[in-house]
This record gives sequence, C-alpha cells and structure tokens, in this order.
Amino acid sequence: MGSLVRSATLRALRNGGPSFSGIAIRRSSLSVGAFSATMSPPSKAVVYEQQGPPDVVTRVIELPPVEVKENDVCVRMLAAPINPSDINRIEGVYPVKPETPAIGGYEGVGEVYSVGSAVKGLSPGDLVIPSPPSFGTWQTYIVKDQSVWYKINKDSPMEYAATITVNPLTALRMLEDFINLNSGDAIVQNGATSIVGQCVIQIAKDRGVHSVNIIRDRPGSGEAKEKLKKLGADEVFTESQLEVKNVKGFLANIPEPALGFNCVGGNAASLVLKFLRQGGTMVTYGGMSKKPITISTSSFIFKDLSLRGFWLQKWLREDKAKECRRMIDYLLDLAREGKLRYEMELVPFDSFRTALDKALGKQGSQPKQVIRF
Amino acid sequence: MGSLVRSATLRALRNGGPSFSGIAIRRSSLSVGAFSATMSPPSKAVVYEQQGPPDVVTRVIELPPVEVKENDVCVRMLAAPINPSDINRIEGVYPVKPETPAIGGYEGVGEVYSVGSAVKGLSPGDLVIPSPPSFGTWQTYIVKDQSVWYKINKDSPMEYAATITVNPLTALRMLEDFINLNSGDAIVQNGATSIVGQCVIQIAKDRGVHSVNIIRDRPGSGEAKEKLKKLGADEVFTESQLEVKNVKGFLANIPEPALGFNCVGGNAASLVLKFLRQGGTMVTYGGMSKKPITISTSSFIFKDLSLRGFWLQKWLREDKAKECRRMIDYLLDLAREGKLRYEMELVPFDSFRTALDKALGKQGSQPKQVIRF
Repeated sequence: MGSLVRSATLRALRNGGPSFSGIAIRRSSLSVGAFSATMSPPSKAVVYEQQGPPDVVTRVIELPPVEVKENDVCVRMLAAPINPSDINRIEGVYPVKPETPAIGGYEGVGEVYSVGSAVKGLSPGDLVIPSPPSFGTWQTYIVKDQSVWYKINKDSPMEYAATITVNPLTALRMLEDFINLNSGDAIVQNGATSIVGQCVIQIAKDRGVHSVNIIRDRPGSGEAKEKLKKLGADEVFTESQLEVKNVKGFLANIPEPALGFNCVGGNAASLVLKFLRQGGTMVTYGGMSKKPITISTSSFIFKDLSLRGFWLQKWLREDKAKECRRMIDYLLDLAREGKLRYEMELVPFDSFRTALDKALGKQGSQPKQVIRF
Repeated sequence: MGSLVRSATLRALRNGGPSFSGIAIRRSSLSVGAFSATMSPPSKAVVYEQQGPPDVVTRVIELPPVEVKENDVCVRMLAAPINPSDINRIEGVYPVKPETPAIGGYEGVGEVYSVGSAVKGLSPGDLVIPSPPSFGTWQTYIVKDQSVWYKINKDSPMEYAATITVNPLTALRMLEDFINLNSGDAIVQNGATSIVGQCVIQIAKDRGVHSVNIIRDRPGSGEAKEKLKKLGADEVFTESQLEVKNVKGFLANIPEPALGFNCVGGNAASLVLKFLRQGGTMVTYGGMSKKPITISTSSFIFKDLSLRGFWLQKWLREDKAKECRRMIDYLLDLAREGKLRYEMELVPFDSFRTALDKALGKQGSQPKQVIRF
C-alpha cells in the first residue's frame, strides 16, 4: 500500500461512520481539503490492516484531524476495555468480520470535546458512551453522528461506564430473555468467575434469585469461592466436587434451578444440566473449553430440558438502541450503588501492548484490561 | 403368591379402573360376591406380575367376569398394537412404572358390548377407543367408567383406530407444539421410516410443508426411499450421503428447514442439526442409536439453534382428553381419506407370543404388530 493511499485510508478510518466500509473510504477520500470546517484534534488509534494475531497485526498510529460536520460529535475517549470478542474480531474468527483497515475496540466511554452546529442535547464535558453497534473505541478522539452517542450520568464510575455494554448487558439479557425468573427462584452457571458470571451473581442477588456456581479446579479455587460468595453467590462448587450421582443433594435451602448458563462446554456444561430442574433451560453463551455440549436423549424426553444460545449481537442493533440505553442506565445505577462490581486493571494507553498481551492470556489469569486514554 | 391371593389379584386387575393401584386392589377384593349385578364376560389378558423381559414376564391368562356398574361400559376389544413404549413399560425402563400385576397395552380399539344403567351416549355396537391415559388394552373385554371411552366414527379403519393415539398423535403434536409452521416451510427428520416418521411426512404434506428425510444405510434403503417418496417425502437421504460439508446444497427448491425431529441421536442427530436454518429448533423424541446428542457451542451462539424434547405423556392427561379427542378425529379422518398410511401386521391374539417376538426385534425389521382379538 503506497503512502498516499495509506494516508487517504487513515483519514477514511476517521470518517467511516457507523457503516464503515469500502464505499465510505472512497467517498471521504474525495472530500480531502475541506479545511475551513471545524476539525477534530488528531487521534491516536489501535489499527489493524488485516485480520490475524492481534499482537502481530495491530499498530498504534496517529490519525489526521477530520471534519466535525453539523450533526457530528467529537468525543475524547477516556477508557475502553479489551474484550475477548475484540480479540476474536481482530483474529477474524468472529462470524461478523469488520472490513479492514479497522480500528479495534467495541465499547468504551468518553467526554464530549466539541459538537457540530446542528447537535442538540450534547455539550462539551458530557459523559457519553457509543451506542451499540459501535466500533473503533481504541482511539483518543472519535467523530461520529450525534445519534451514536448516549449521554450517561456524570457520576458513573468511569471503568464501569467503559465496560457496561458487553459483559453486564449479556448477564442482564440472559436473566431476562429465556424464562420468567421470580424472587426465590434459582439459576446455575459454570465459568462463574468470568465477568459475565460475576454480573449474573450480582444481578440475580439484587432480584432475590439464588445462584449456584461452578468453577474450575485450580490452585486458588478456595479464594475464588470466597470472592464469589462475597458478591452474593449462594453456592460455589468446583467441578470435581460435583462428580457425584446426585448433585441436587448439595442444594439444601435453594430450589432446583430453572435456568442455567454455560460458557465452558464439555463436562462443565453437563454439570449445569445435572442441576437443572424438570423443564429447565440451559443457555450457552461461550465455549472456553473448546469442547462441544453432549446431552442424553432422556434429558430431552423425560426431563424436558431446553438448550438455547445467547449472542449479544442480537441486541446490538439500531432498532434495539433505545431498549439498550434503558438497560445501560439500570446497570450503571447498580454499579454506582456498589451492587455491581468486578475486577479491572486500568492501563495507560502507552502500555497498550502490555495490556494486549495480558488480555491474550500471555501472563496467565489477569483482570479485565481497560485502556485509560 | 398363594392361589387365593392370586385370584383376588386377578379380579382386582379387572376392577382397577383408571387409577389402578394397591388401594384399588384392596377395595375391590372386599366387594367379591356381588353376583346379582350385571357381569362382564370373562376376559383373556396379557398380564405381567413383575417388570422384566416381556417374553419372560408376560402370560396370557383368563380373568373372571367383573361387575358392570351403573357408570361402567364393557368393551369387547377388537385390536391393540404392541408399541415400543409398551415394551419399555413391561421392562421397567420407562420413567412411568405401572404397578404390578398389570395388563399390557396402552392403546387400542373396541366395540361396546354392554353398558351400565346410568351410561348415556354409548350403546352396544359403538366403536370406541380408550381415552389417554389408559392401559391394559391387551385383553378381550375391558370394563371401565364411561368417561374413559371415546366414541369414534364407525367407518374408521380398525387397525388405524387401534394405533392412532400414540404414533400419529406424536407426529401431529411435534408439528404443532414448537414453532409455527406454514405452507411452504420445511422440516427435517431422521428415523424417517419409523411410523412417527411416516406420519410426519404425510401430515406435513397435507399442510404443504416440505420434508427432508434421513434414513439409515442398509440393504434395501433404495426401496425405503421410494416408499417414503410415495408417502409425500420431498427428499430422502441415507446418512452416508450427507457426509459432506454443505448438506444444504442438496436442497434445490426447498427452503432451509426451521424444525427438525430426532429419534436416533449420535451422528443422525448431528445431520438434522446440519440441515436446520438459522434460529431453527430440533426436537428429540427418541434415541434409537442409544447415543447422546452432541452439539457445538457455535451452533447455539451464532446459529441460534434451540434443542427441545417431546414426550407424548404430557398430552396423555385427563385435562387434555378433550383436545386429544379432537386431534384423534382429525387423524382418523386423514386415515379414512387414505392420507395417513403406515404398514401394520394384524396378528390373531392366539399368536401373541409370535407378535411379541417380532415386536422385540427377534426376527429383524418387521411391520408394527397389531393384535386382533
């Protein structure tokens, strides 16, 4: 790629808008030179020009200023996490493949820096998060149409605002989308130490719903149990504890779970199924073990179990934006009240490579990496 | 068991009524001697005194006459099939275990022989089938409360009337209970040569719903294909034909199936899943291969598949009797019109042991065995 083409491409990256595509790139490269308009500051961004291993294909580069058109809002990003799905997108193993070149990141929080002449309801200094579907949050300044930005409560804790749209929203939707859970009911989940798992425990707790949690056998599982119990988990078991015929004997004062969540697969999924009550539903939203789910015929016929799947993508559509915003407010309220907590590590943007390595698991189990711009 | 006790027990078998139980046995053994009332003829029945291999534990015995009380109807049985679930009940491997001693059989058809003084709407000569839940159809005369008997059209073909409540009803419910199928839609199923499978093909056809059918690889599969196509199957494949990456290439003018039925498990279940469209549902109602169902994480998350189970038992309850009767009329209409056909072998009651051996698979693949009393 020649340097002239690249410079047009990079400018295009900043003008891509929500439908960032080859067409957008061509259009914006024609408008080069409109320097009379209000311009954004230059931006520093994590870019990948092709799919591949994230530590190989990503580069931190400077992007030139772009025009802030009358309906645009320029936001100075404050923080954005590195989620597993961000990594999958860069690797190209996600069913939704961003066109390249692309800027990484799918959620985050920022502060309004400047607004176009026709923008209403947003002013410099407002705290905003990009509405799903959004992308390209790994950069210092973003210019996008005002409709993309959602103004949130200024008291929202920044690192939670930056991470509320993917994991907590997944937990909330899974608790609401499949069966009608009432106070006093119970759910069961594996991968309970994941951020979604921790959110499930806390949102369930806030609703009077008991949680039965399954974690891996590993050094430190005793501490992990205590941590989850502090968040409100009713029961926490390691997989090996559950290698008994009747797991339900473990549930003294908790009803049999009507709903189960599986983000592991293999044996850990079978353990969730074992706990479910007659007519229960297991929702799969991840497969950390890379093993499939195996289930007996009689579980379907005589136990009447249902197996479903959850993908947040279904919610990250423009027609769901209003509903999502309401849910985000609810979740940020919980976070502000201290009822929704999970461990994160804020990392200066300058240390992006270290954060990426940690997110890629190169340094063992690490807290969620959140880039601080 | 002494001979006196046995004779009381056998009398009890005939008086057990719909809630046949130890209590009923005791109650009826106290009423021995009411010979002034109208009595049924003696009955010849297939009885088992304990669960076990059907060819070992069943005996054909004579049962003494019983009283036909004012609300009772005495029915001379005409025909009753030997279903796999009947065999499972005798073996004791079915989740619903009949108390023993018990008479075999769960569906059938008969003719009213005599009625109690308070019976309305049923007269000698009427064709009736016992309403689900019923049992003990493998006998020549049955005396039960009038509420149990459902009068059907006298033109109903006897062997279809005898077999309509289990297999055709399963096919009908599975086509209606899970998703809303419209004319032009498609379903996919394995075990398509089973009676349920054949009923699915024909009921679907009658509703303009396409069927994609999967059968085992075995000698004669070519003929089996032709047979199913004559019933209305759009496509029939053997499992080995489907060991390709893209099975959907096989569907030229048929939309991707929204609903799948699995009565086999193992690889045959995976083939059903392969055919299903985004958001499709697979319903498991049997496990002939005795292998579990294995499904990938991505099928749940990205393909949004749902896995469910079907058990007819849910429909065979008193509160569903009215609805079941409506469906039975509909199915018998189809049979009378020649739109619902499947192969059966009518066997004289005297040859019960041969029929049982065939139903147990001792003589290879055989048509459904229907006892003719």
